[in-house]
Amino acid sequence: MTQRKSFGSDNQAGAHGAVLSALARANLGDAVGYGDDPWTQRAAAALCTAFGAGGGAFFVFTGTAANVLGLSLLLRPYEGVICADSAHVNVDECGAPERILGSKLLTVPAPDGKLTPGLISTQLADRGDEHRVQARVVTISQVTELGTCYTLAELKSLGEFCRAEKLRLYIDGARLANAAAHLGCSLADLAAQADVLSFGGTKNGAVGAEAVVVMAEELTAHVPFLRKQQGQLASKMRYLAVQFQALLDADLWLRNAAHANAMARRLADGIRGSNAVFASLDPAHIARLQQDWQFYVWDTTAQVVRWMTAYDTTEADVDTFVADVWRTAQA
Amino acid sequence: MTQRKSFGSDNQAGAHGAVLSALARANLGDAVGYGDDPWTQRAAAALCTAFGAGGGAFFVFTGTAANVLGLSLLLRPYEGVICADSAHVNVDECGAPERILGSKLLTVPAPDGKLTPGLISTQLADRGDEHRVQARVVTISQVTELGTCYTLAELKSLGEFCRAEKLRLYIDGARLANAAAHLGCSLADLAAQADVLSFGGTKNGAVGAEAVVVMAEELTAHVPFLRKQQGQLASKMRYLAVQFQALLDADLWLRNAAHANAMARRLADGIRGSNAVFASLDPAHIARLQQDWQFYVWDTTAQVVRWMTAYDTTEADVDTFVADVWRTAQA
Amino acid sequence: MTQRKSFGSDNQAGAHGAVLSALARANLGDAVGYGDDPWTQRAAAALCTAFGAGGGAFFVFTGTAANVLGLSLLLRPYEGVICADSAHVNVDECGAPERILGSKLLTVPAPDGKLTPGLISTQLADRGDEHRVQARVVTISQVTELGTCYTLAELKSLGEFCRAEKLRLYIDGARLANAAAHLGCSLADLAAQADVLSFGGTKNGAVGAEAVVVMAEELTAHVPFLRKQQGQLASKMRYLAVQFQALLDADLWLRNAAHANAMARRLADGIRGSNAVFASLDPAHIARLQQDWQFYVWDTTAQVVRWMTAYDTTEADVDTFVADVWRTAQA
Amino acid sequence: MTQRKSFGSDNQAGAHGAVLSALARANLGDAVGYGDDPWTQRAAAALCTAFGAGGGAFFVFTGTAANVLGLSLLLRPYEGVICADSAHVNVDECGAPERILGSKLLTVPAPDGKLTPGLISTQLADRGDEHRVQARVVTISQVTELGTCYTLAELKSLGEFCRAEKLRLYIDGARLANAAAHLGCSLADLAAQADVLSFGGTKNGAVGAEAVVVMAEELTAHVPFLRKQQGQLASKMRYLAVQFQALLDADLWLRNAAHANAMARRLADGIRGSNAVFASLDPAHIARLQQDWQFYVWDTTAQVVRWMTAYDTTEADVDTFVADVWRTAQA
Repeated sequence: MTQRKSFGSDNQAGAHGAVLSALARANLGDAVGYGDDPWTQRAAAALCTAFGAGGGAFFVFTGTAANVLGLSLLLRPYEGVICADSAHVNVDECGAPERILGSKLLTVPAPDGKLTPGLISTQLADRGDEHRVQARVVTISQVTELGTCYTLAELKSLGEFCRAEKLRLYIDGARLANAAAHLGCSLADLAAQADVLSFGGTKNGAVGAEAVVVMAEELTAHVPFLRKQQGQLASKMRYLAVQFQALLDADLWLRNAAHANAMARRLADGIRGSNAVFASLDPAHIARLQQDWQFYVWDTTAQVVRWMTAYDTTEADVDTFVADVWRTAQA
Repeated sequence: MTQRKSFGSDNQAGAHGAVLSALARANLGDAVGYGDDPWTQRAAAALCTAFGAGGGAFFVFTGTAANVLGLSLLLRPYEGVICADSAHVNVDECGAPERILGSKLLTVPAPDGKLTPGLISTQLADRGDEHRVQARVVTISQVTELGTCYTLAELKSLGEFCRAEKLRLYIDGARLANAAAHLGCSLADLAAQADVLSFGGTKNGAVGAEAVVVMAEELTAHVPFLRKQQGQLASKMRYLAVQFQALLDADLWLRNAAHANAMARRLADGIRGSNAVFASLDPAHIARLQQDWQFYVWDTTAQVVRWMTAYDTTEADVDTFVADVWRTAQA
Repeated sequence: MTQRKSFGSDNQAGAHGAVLSALARANLGDAVGYGDDPWTQRAAAALCTAFGAGGGAFFVFTGTAANVLGLSLLLRPYEGVICADSAHVNVDECGAPERILGSKLLTVPAPDGKLTPGLISTQLADRGDEHRVQARVVTISQVTELGTCYTLAELKSLGEFCRAEKLRLYIDGARLANAAAHLGCSLADLAAQADVLSFGGTKNGAVGAEAVVVMAEELTAHVPFLRKQQGQLASKMRYLAVQFQALLDADLWLRNAAHANAMARRLADGIRGSNAVFASLDPAHIARLQQDWQFYVWDTTAQVVRWMTAYDTTEADVDTFVADVWRTAQA
Repeated sequence: MTQRKSFGSDNQAGAHGAVLSALARANLGDAVGYGDDPWTQRAAAALCTAFGAGGGAFFVFTGTAANVLGLSLLLRPYEGVICADSAHVNVDECGAPERILGSKLLTVPAPDGKLTPGLISTQLADRGDEHRVQARVVTISQVTELGTCYTLAELKSLGEFCRAEKLRLYIDGARLANAAAHLGCSLADLAAQADVLSFGGTKNGAVGAEAVVVMAEELTAHVPFLRKQQGQLASKMRYLAVQFQALLDADLWLRNAAHANAMARRLADGIRGSNAVFASLDPAHIARLQQDWQFYVWDTTAQVVRWMTAYDTTEADVDTFVADVWRTAQA
């Protein structure tokens, strides 16, 4: 528990009140386990509708688990995953893709965190060579780990390129809601080019719940077994499902994301001379600010900090923080 | 949601009110993620005290995940796990030990679900033979999947045997609370012989939370990385931790388990002529009963059903069910 | 090097002279690596013809490697392999199927080492249950590890059962030559029901070479990548290939196997009162015999020994050995 | 079989006559399998002496297999391997490290194929962070895939850095002989800093044999099981062992390597204006040359070709080739 609003990560926020209320409402007597209950069926159906997904929506506990499950649907043992070198799957999952899937990541330097057909092409020269892992899946993060966002046109171009090259497209959507809010588009718009994608609840106000959304029906039959094998089959599934139901009701997910985005904009606007929410600061100022505020140094060498807003960051939180940043800078 | 109390599984029960209240109380503003928060630290410390564990307590989401994480602490790539053929790790985890750990299970037929030094010995002949997986871990379930329970003397004898044979002992404690209630002993008594064990919250009234308890301090350093790699690191960890805190407060876990045990006894007593909660019935009677009640046929060939009570099964639930069983049998 | 002919294992024999000559003949200047050479193409084509295989023949170094490669063609991550509990893949590969493939073996007790449709059926009850590994491949050894041999009728019945149940059939053919010699049938007869099978060269007079024969063409595209990934792609492939060419020329493989079989029969006939080449002996007699002769005690508890002949065991070897067995028994 | 001497790869050469003779000499009657024979013991002891290795020498079939076995001795599941991006383990093993070991490679761009303490340091920032794979092993190739060679001083500096940073050092020695010939040092000099290394026989005139040399005795106990599990335990081990014996006798390995090196120098000297054996050519000239000669285009974009000599490349081969290169260039 921190005294001041944290700018450390959107996963340091608590759960939205509506999510907790939904948990309480679901706590009515018995329900058949492992997802064969009305709450799970309703939430999964609602997600399928929102995403235009023919293959189903499946709940898991963490973002890493969602990525591993999603990718496991798409890969043979000798096939690899093209990703930006900054991708969460490459950097922040403690080697889960390699250990749990056994799959190689074919990383591409991408200064803004975004892949392009040109960047993907650099990993396609070795197709057919038995000494080389065969590129099969492209994974992108929307929004990326660097805070950038693919436009719908960019997504379309990636999708077309992947289909032409017989590559599958996976989207790590841990912050997909923020992308939808930013682009003013629907979840279905974001998912249209993907074969499989994740939809993050945890950073959007859930207690802890992620969904794996399967666009292609022919992949569906494998999911239950892989989810179970990967330790992600909740016995009391209803408590995962209703978190998503609460976020979907009256578009709470969108309001949460739009609010977090607005606070980031307010923060970026408040810090003139900085490059928005990623800011480069004097090390002494970083140290002084961190005495009172929670946030992370993103790049120790370049002294870049990352300030992150959440669905429950208030305008007052931002304004107080901005004032403190200025005060520190002038001290 | 079923109309009548389910006798299907203790994971069909909802969450205990105290657990839900704890979730709400923890929902106060921000907290640093991934377990570096006061709730997690308090609950982990409380578990360590209760178990006499020097190595720490770590929260995960499911029983399968707890078993995989626990076993992964104890195995080299060419080492195997001795278990009863009825063990959950062998039967009900969709091959997770083989897939996620890459480890072979060395199964032993055990009619009552319990291993003995003699049974374990049957798997030790090949030590040193490079063609054979080397036995390294013994895993037992307490209580077992067949509802039986190791006595403290049996546990001691297993522990001594394992130490003499340089075998590690893991306990799958998805229903460890029920064993403590049945034996009238402490959690530390149950854990005394183990190197690592799990402690199940979900079947004891949690929303969904399991703990991996590490007795031996030298294993601790590996846990955080393996937990993350296995997709089990909760960002908003506090919501896992407080579920255990709620169960530990005033020994709620023990009262829950004792109550579930008492209801099972009442059920067994009510069905004279049956072998307790595993009962063998006329197929026609099974079908008729299942129209109104939720429970599982355990063994289709032998027509054995399993009736399971939970922390929230009431005496009235049991009595109504028993009456219905008799009525059906006499129809 | 042992003084007397070994009855320990057919892999204790040296290489057949024709195999060594073939190595020398292939040692002519350069050849493109990794199998793109005329010797490999000729030997692979000859194997395909002999087996009636549409999918190709691929050379690897060991029997364990052949089994792992063969099975890896047939399994999804959550699918398992039905095998006899005495199968080499289960007992003698140090857990390679679990570690390298990540796949669970669903073992069936089979006193004579042979599976039947009835025995296989015992592993099919859980199809569709996400908590359980899904049976997908049946693997049999021909001849079995216990020296028994499936008849063509038995193979046909297994093949029909597997197709009806949508199971794939793999044959571990480390000693397939001995089966062909025993049954008086062709390799194509033995392979007719299989999807993939191995054909052992090492125990048939090779220096060290096994082939994975793929009956179904749609599996072929995966082999090169999996073979390379599994460490089995020979750069100087010609030296593997010509070993098989030497064995195939003028049916040397068949003569070798027929001879080894005949010597085993002679041995079994010589030891009246024993159950053929598996014999149960007084422990004192075993010890005395092993001072002069190389063979293995198969079952320490039952004092059963295994005597194994090879392609180069002579009638004199057998007769001397038999005389010694009798002398020892009467001492 | 190619008409003219291949400059494609040193694995396109045949086997040295002394190696084939050794195979024939070892083909004397029976020998106990799996390495418990006098040839294997003698060759392993000779390698240990040559390398100053306390932990033993173990024979396997391929370079990929040697690397996988060697690395598997040094890694926990959440630990990673620092390597140059051009390393064979990263580029040319079809993802075996990820699939067979489950381990992540932490790649570093290294234009000359050589790692330095400075380059390694770039991968050490995340130690202790549970979200990140923990760097544990540094692997270098000696000589590198780009034909460069670490000096003894560079090796010493790497060794000291690794020990100071608690990193293990593995050397991929597929062409270690060429490095020894180039540096004029012993195998023990090359191995002094390593924990484990491979020693390639195949490219040095063997039929197909690699050795894994273990410097540290405490690692030895694991090797037999891992080698078996990874499909690399030869039953007729003697035929692997004597290949190395033949290469070690009277330093044939060194003469082979020195000769191959000299031919490469002669080739490089012959092609003035080229950057040695990696040469950048007009695409039209490449095509014309490849009509008569076997070699590979290393980098399609930059039109760089790689010309490789072997232990059996003659001066006449080189001179004819050089003349042809000039003729083509002037056409």
